[in-house]
Amino acid sequence: DISGTQSFNKMRKESRLSHWICWIVAVTALFFLGFIIGKAPHGELFLNYDDKNGKLVDRGKSQNRKLNCCPNRKFTRLPHLAGTEQNLKYAEQIKKEWLEFGLDSVSLVPYDVLLSYPNKSQPNYISICDDLGNEVFNTSLAEPIPQGYEDVSNIVPPYSAFSAKGQPQGDLVYVNYGRTEDFFQLEREMGINVTGKIVIVRYGKIFRGNKVKNAMLAGAKGIIMFSDPADYWAADVEPYPDGWNLPGGGAQRGNVLNLNGAGDPLTPGYPAKEYTYRFSLDEGVGLPKIPVHPIGFHDAIHLLKNMGGRIPPNNWKGALNVSYRIGPGFTDDFKSQKVRMNIHTNNQVTRIYNVIGKIRGALEPDRYVILGGHRDAWVFGGIDPMSGAAVLHETARSAGSLLKKGWRPRRTIIFASWDAEEFGLLGSTEWAEDNARLLQERAVAYINADSAIEGMYTLRVDCTPSLHTLAYDITKQVSLLAHTTHLKLIIHINLKLSSLISKLGSGSDFEAYFIRLGIAAGRARYTKNRVRNRYSSYPVYHSVYETFEIVERFYDPSFRRLRAVAQVRGGLIFMLADSKLLPLDVNEYADSLGKYAQSIAEVAQKHPEQMELYKVSFDSLFSAVQNFSAAARDFYARLQTLHTEEHVIFAPSSHNKYAGESFPGIYDALFDIENSADPEKAWQEVKRQISIAAFMVHAAAMTLTPPA
Amino acid sequence: DISGTQSFNKMRKESRLSHWICWIVAVTALFFLGFIIGKAPHGELFLNYDDKNGKLVDRGKSQNRKLNCCPNRKFTRLPHLAGTEQNLKYAEQIKKEWLEFGLDSVSLVPYDVLLSYPNKSQPNYISICDDLGNEVFNTSLAEPIPQGYEDVSNIVPPYSAFSAKGQPQGDLVYVNYGRTEDFFQLEREMGINVTGKIVIVRYGKIFRGNKVKNAMLAGAKGIIMFSDPADYWAADVEPYPDGWNLPGGGAQRGNVLNLNGAGDPLTPGYPAKEYTYRFSLDEGVGLPKIPVHPIGFHDAIHLLKNMGGRIPPNNWKGALNVSYRIGPGFTDDFKSQKVRMNIHTNNQVTRIYNVIGKIRGALEPDRYVILGGHRDAWVFGGIDPMSGAAVLHETARSAGSLLKKGWRPRRTIIFASWDAEEFGLLGSTEWAEDNARLLQERAVAYINADSAIEGMYTLRVDCTPSLHTLAYDITKQVSLLAHTTHLKLIIHINLKLSSLISKLGSGSDFEAYFIRLGIAAGRARYTKNRVRNRYSSYPVYHSVYETFEIVERFYDPSFRRLRAVAQVRGGLIFMLADSKLLPLDVNEYADSLGKYAQSIAEVAQKHPEQMELYKVSFDSLFSAVQNFSAAARDFYARLQTLHTEEHVIFAPSSHNKYAGESFPGIYDALFDIENSADPEKAWQEVKRQISIAAFMVHAAAMTLTPPA
Repeated sequence: DISGTQSFNKMRKESRLSHWICWIVAVTALFFLGFIIGKAPHGELFLNYDDKNGKLVDRGKSQNRKLNCCPNRKFTRLPHLAGTEQNLKYAEQIKKEWLEFGLDSVSLVPYDVLLSYPNKSQPNYISICDDLGNEVFNTSLAEPIPQGYEDVSNIVPPYSAFSAKGQPQGDLVYVNYGRTEDFFQLEREMGINVTGKIVIVRYGKIFRGNKVKNAMLAGAKGIIMFSDPADYWAADVEPYPDGWNLPGGGAQRGNVLNLNGAGDPLTPGYPAKEYTYRFSLDEGVGLPKIPVHPIGFHDAIHLLKNMGGRIPPNNWKGALNVSYRIGPGFTDDFKSQKVRMNIHTNNQVTRIYNVIGKIRGALEPDRYVILGGHRDAWVFGGIDPMSGAAVLHETARSAGSLLKKGWRPRRTIIFASWDAEEFGLLGSTEWAEDNARLLQERAVAYINADSAIEGMYTLRVDCTPSLHTLAYDITKQVSLLAHTTHLKLIIHINLKLSSLISKLGSGSDFEAYFIRLGIAAGRARYTKNRVRNRYSSYPVYHSVYETFEIVERFYDPSFRRLRAVAQVRGGLIFMLADSKLLPLDVNEYADSLGKYAQSIAEVAQKHPEQMELYKVSFDSLFSAVQNFSAAARDFYARLQTLHTEEHVIFAPSSHNKYAGESFPGIYDALFDIENSADPEKAWQEVKRQISIAAFMVHAAAMTLTPPA
Repeated sequence: DISGTQSFNKMRKESRLSHWICWIVAVTALFFLGFIIGKAPHGELFLNYDDKNGKLVDRGKSQNRKLNCCPNRKFTRLPHLAGTEQNLKYAEQIKKEWLEFGLDSVSLVPYDVLLSYPNKSQPNYISICDDLGNEVFNTSLAEPIPQGYEDVSNIVPPYSAFSAKGQPQGDLVYVNYGRTEDFFQLEREMGINVTGKIVIVRYGKIFRGNKVKNAMLAGAKGIIMFSDPADYWAADVEPYPDGWNLPGGGAQRGNVLNLNGAGDPLTPGYPAKEYTYRFSLDEGVGLPKIPVHPIGFHDAIHLLKNMGGRIPPNNWKGALNVSYRIGPGFTDDFKSQKVRMNIHTNNQVTRIYNVIGKIRGALEPDRYVILGGHRDAWVFGGIDPMSGAAVLHETARSAGSLLKKGWRPRRTIIFASWDAEEFGLLGSTEWAEDNARLLQERAVAYINADSAIEGMYTLRVDCTPSLHTLAYDITKQVSLLAHTTHLKLIIHINLKLSSLISKLGSGSDFEAYFIRLGIAAGRARYTKNRVRNRYSSYPVYHSVYETFEIVERFYDPSFRRLRAVAQVRGGLIFMLADSKLLPLDVNEYADSLGKYAQSIAEVAQKHPEQMELYKVSFDSLFSAVQNFSAAARDFYARLQTLHTEEHVIFAPSSHNKYAGESFPGIYDALFDIENSADPEKAWQEVKRQISIAAFMVHAAAMTLTPPA
């Protein structure tokens, strides 16, 4: 991540300035999020903006003495997997509280989607079997329960949701991270074919569903994924409960679908309601056809230690005390031993519940600003998602408290507690499908509220380009007000936006809103130092060790980080909902399209001969971007002439739709060139994708030109 | 057509009343459309509405003396096929005149689409060959030129646009109209397989492209289509030039695509611009794979007269003096003779030009009301499309003249002269694709302006249900004001709307707007008496005999019919563009959805056992319609409380999107049940389509509920 590295280097140079500012803002106002720790600044908005100058002001500070006791750490005490009774109970409780906060309406919105659970009477595990079929080693059936949770029931053991059932047996092949390039290297350089084999890969680098897809395409009959300490272990940190590293008995749960944003696998394109036609399981979108299972590194050692075959390249070696040999199968001493997967996981259509709360806009009730994050957790969800759900809940509380004082936002605010995110962003996608027609007309922006922390280092904002300027303005103020530990943001005031704010990717509930509906979207969280901490996500990700205590003891003892994230997310929502003019920056949008087009064109330029042979040109895309930039400048100039003092300003909002969502199609097509047996066809697809992107940019430009 | 029949019977009962009213309105104000006859009420709106009471008033009457000479019969003097220089010249002339009329902006909008022309050096024809390969009979290479046009060049001979090239030779099989049921009867009841044969079918009943598709599916290697007098000949009428019947040497041109609304076959989903990726001809949408050719009945007699094989069923017999034997091939006496098609038609990407004119709305410039009709003609286009293009032109003139007096409509009006309608609605569809994002947000309604006459009997309006009430109100006033010949409409004032106004079908430029974008749409024209005149469309349809003179001498000597059509189309546009509240009727919309759902459910009820076996139910659709109806009633009630006296009323416009466009999917699925080898799968598809329709109706209902 080049921009991250540059930004880090700049940070170090300005560390003296940072210390100076630290000194100035010595008084730190502590802030406790009542949602998860049971203490809240009752009835007060912790973050608000001044109507007169549009600036954020901190109203929480002066209210810190008014703390109020709530049920302790509610919402992280019990496992609340999607589709379970407990997750419905939490939904009902949230609905009740949001109504108490003063929201205009709150309702539970159910969908019936395909979920996947282990079979309670037939546990999933992996065996090493001798030549008589005896199980000489079995992987563990559950993670060791963390202290304080010994009496809790309904902790689902580590599993790969939507795995196919089956008991494949065979030789293991180790394929590093299971990426496309890893399988290429295996097949082309090492000459190893995995047809009929079971592959074992380490977690990290790419989404686990893609590892499974790659294994299927390569012909494997099963896939095992493990958490290697090289990828899930920070230096000089103890495993939980003495630190925040992943214990050897912990494993990463997760779905292994290849949905491509389809939502419920059985109802692609349509909301999974009672009347909706459902595909059969055979026709379902993205369901893997082979068994899949996740294990921790204690178990992985046993599977890997006797593996034979060739020595791996250095970048295939993890941090375990084994040789990471490729296989197939074990060394001569253990040649007769085979690995067997025993997977009995069931897919079943299950009811899930989104909680949708609304505050009606005073002047533009048909413009929607959405703050949404998921509620369902693999187990307790101490980090994922409840550190983010807490922010959502507190923002609703704050808005409600302002409502009671007579305030009402200009536009409608929608709060959404999504269900079944962990099973493929299902709750948020079904609601987007259900409301697509309304949202495409009315939605102004979507802000995501998944996990508020994935590290302790600094704030991280990813958003569509039209939100760059707003996000920058808010983070600047938050860093000044909220006294974050590192104050990294302050020293960035004069740095370029691009080094602070990244492109929006995928992997959480904003996906349907940003990619499918094209709505302006953003997310904010506290992140790790990406240079020093090279582990994927965070070590205990999706394990039973994601407890409230890991946050309280290690990630955010003062809850300052959660507070800063709440201020950014809340600030975005409030500014989007209540500014007279929508705070969307068309010039940033234009700049980003240009940079993005340039970077894709550079990727293509790695193949100059083929570019010429197949007459591939990016000229049409650059021309479209130029056209958009001119329209954006003109739009911006016209905005300056609007009479903002008038009572009602209907600001143009069409530019909240982002054309950049069409660009990844070009990347994908370029990526496929390596694989395709028919380069002409592959380059035709690149040309087609360039043409589509140019069209999308032209269409976006049209929405910026005067209406007639 | 049941509703048409009922309406006709009611008309006859009330014919005495009709005569009485005829007597009252004895003074007929003549109206000449300057566009095609060169005389116009200069600078005067022939139709307007009174701002105070929203009623239509006729301002043309008092201005009839102010006639002004324009270039005579311009726009029908020369052939102006899409893609030709002449059609561009007409586009430029229309642009120039619209600007003179006073429109705010007019531009030519080009697209590069796939068109199809005969090869000038290798004419298309069909031969009968003897066993030595000698051509013993050839069909004619052109239609006899009508009087007065002898010196005109560039008359394209009758051909089937987009026919495959080729010279297939074989035995003929006669398959009636070439409908699915005709091929079923041929194969199942008569046991005749057309694989490797050339089929000959008569024009009529269904779109010619579907005849070609059916022939291809049945395995034919070529298809000949002829105009049978039974279908293209009115009783007691002379052939042109002594009457309006089709001469024996005339033939029907036309495209034979199966586009399903895709627009340009090479750029489905995207506008055919210079930067757009184009499929290869092999991949093009809807292009037939076999040669196709149209002939007149003089030529058809020669092909049919010696045919052998079985005697046809009575409903397969046309009106020619031949036996209509089925074949395959000729009688024993001519057994050695074969039929050969010689088709050299070329597909080529060609530039076409829409003319787009705009009048900026004064208060709601971002709401668009569109009046569009095509300009391209197979030859002169005396009826199709210039009788409609004249209405478009005169409406633009009238609006311009009002603008010059200081008037400006509340909403933006867009006038569109489409190109290449005859080649698959290409100009209108490409523009819809180009502007889809804007139109889905902003378009209020689309009114079509293709041929204004297809008969001399009465007005006919087809529209989406939300326009029923407006169309009814306008036609009532037009019939009172415009003194149409039959005054049929007046006597219908107390009849139900459903007997007057029909569902919108397909086959002209409204398709992309209504079906793909779901925008409220309508069309109006003068039609024939459907009970007495059972011929398809009108006899000279798409022949060289569609001249200005056939209109002037036979169809509308006084131009009263064109005037009535202009008043309806113009009235719709003006009311939609200038009413304070959008004149769309949600309750009619709800009623129609209910009737439509009921009629589809009745079709399905023909298979009660299968309905039960496969658990097919329409309950979800009926429930969705009920939900919509309740939302519509509530919406209507809220509309009544709006303060219409305020300066700016932003009326809700979401209900201009029609959910009914999803219903035909159920029909198609039900239709496929007969054909499917796998009834379970076919019924699953019915269920899926019911579910989609229910979803669309629910989504439409949401747009009627209060925004938050």
